[in-house]
Amino acid sequence: MIQLYELAGADPEVRFSPYCWRIRMALAHKGLEPETLAWRFKDRAKLPGKAVVTQVPVLLDQGRVLSESTRIAFYLEHEYDSCPSLFGGPAGEPPTRFIIHWADSVLNPGLFPLVVADVFAALHPRDQAYFRESREKRLGRSLEQIAAARGEFLPGFRASLAPLRRTLAEQRFLGGEEPSYADYAVFGGFQWARVVSPADVLAEDDTLVAWRSEMLGLFEGLAAEAKRAV
Amino acid sequence: MIQLYELAGADPEVRFSPYCWRIRMALAHKGLEPETLAWRFKDRAKLPGKAVVTQVPVLLDQGRVLSESTRIAFYLEHEYDSCPSLFGGPAGEPPTRFIIHWADSVLNPGLFPLVVADVFAALHPRDQAYFRESREKRLGRSLEQIAAARGEFLPGFRASLAPLRRTLAEQRFLGGEEPSYADYAVFGGFQWARVVSPADVLAEDDTLVAWRSEMLGLFEGLAAEAKRAV
Repeated sequence: MIQLYELAGADPEVRFSPYCWRIRMALAHKGLEPETLAWRFKDRAKLPGKAVVTQVPVLLDQGRVLSESTRIAFYLEHEYDSCPSLFGGPAGEPPTRFIIHWADSVLNPGLFPLVVADVFAALHPRDQAYFRESREKRLGRSLEQIAAARGEFLPGFRASLAPLRRTLAEQRFLGGEEPSYADYAVFGGFQWARVVSPADVLAEDDTLVAWRSEMLGLFEGLAAEAKRAV
Repeated sequence: MIQLYELAGADPEVRFSPYCWRIRMALAHKGLEPETLAWRFKDRAKLPGKAVVTQVPVLLDQGRVLSESTRIAFYLEHEYDSCPSLFGGPAGEPPTRFIIHWADSVLNPGLFPLVVADVFAALHPRDQAYFRESREKRLGRSLEQIAAARGEFLPGFRASLAPLRRTLAEQRFLGGEEPSYADYAVFGGFQWARVVSPADVLAEDDTLVAWRSEMLGLFEGLAAEAKRAV
């Protein structure tokens, strides 16, 4: 059975990493049901072989150990090529890489200051010191200062979603009529926010709310039914 | 023969519209050679039928009149389906729409303040008053003020290219091994800047310079040999 290491909160059932969610959705798309294993920053879980997990997701399949969400997605696509394609076919792969990089370099960094204080609160106490130190260094401000400035970040974040909003005004999913890995790569960020935060990152009347609802409902509500920290 | 109306400068051979360049490249990709017709803002060219061209590109083919670059691209893809696909096949179409919208909502608006004064200078004198009035209204500043602030806009523009830079670090073109309409949609912006501006919008050591050079060289140097205003 495929095993998937996922970042967990103080409650081991709370799984919020945007990159892990990409793979959870991708596995479901392929019709694969993994055993998911809680991982925490301070765990550095030792795998059956020699590898040590220093970041998640990590996927174990047929004796192979794979890390990094994009690499895992392409592995699943080609290893399980008789299951539904994650990209609608080979021609979908190159442009989808752009969407993944947009999510990595625009969407998720834009969400980060909006959710960072909630992520901190959801973490296992043993993870909090590491998280605070590394994230405050990256942002140059305390988590509390960032949380207090949430209202300043929100308009810019919402404006940055323009390409997503315009695309989804023309088609049901980034993948077209059916969801694809492009949808999962982007949705991971929204699920991250949803699992940890009580506040919504989207305005109520944002047209993206409809797409997000569709994503939440996929695979019998896999994401909708995920345990939240709030 | 296909006819294509393109925005022209004071020199009718200077063609700089980013949206027209998308279609020039797309036609070449399909192996189609259009008759290109100079159009200017104040021309409002009357077509053979009743239509009046109020924005370009406009494509005339087999008695049909098509406007808007994205619509024209999809028309060419399906009307000329025995010629090489602009999207690598149907699976490439949905994710490419995201890249087109990224170019429309991030890349081209980011280039606008960097090139607007040069565009103004390249225009036919009869177009300049209309252009000044409409663009100053949109930006809330005079063209001269915007040009003077070029150095302020440049770092943010270059940072906004992160998804493009990361994708092209992994693959030769947005289309993968071969250029696709995604590449033409993005390249149009760079060609706009190149045709009107003496200054480069990319830093010399930007890894995107190599991709842009490849794009300039396609179709026997179609874009490289285009007449520049400078």
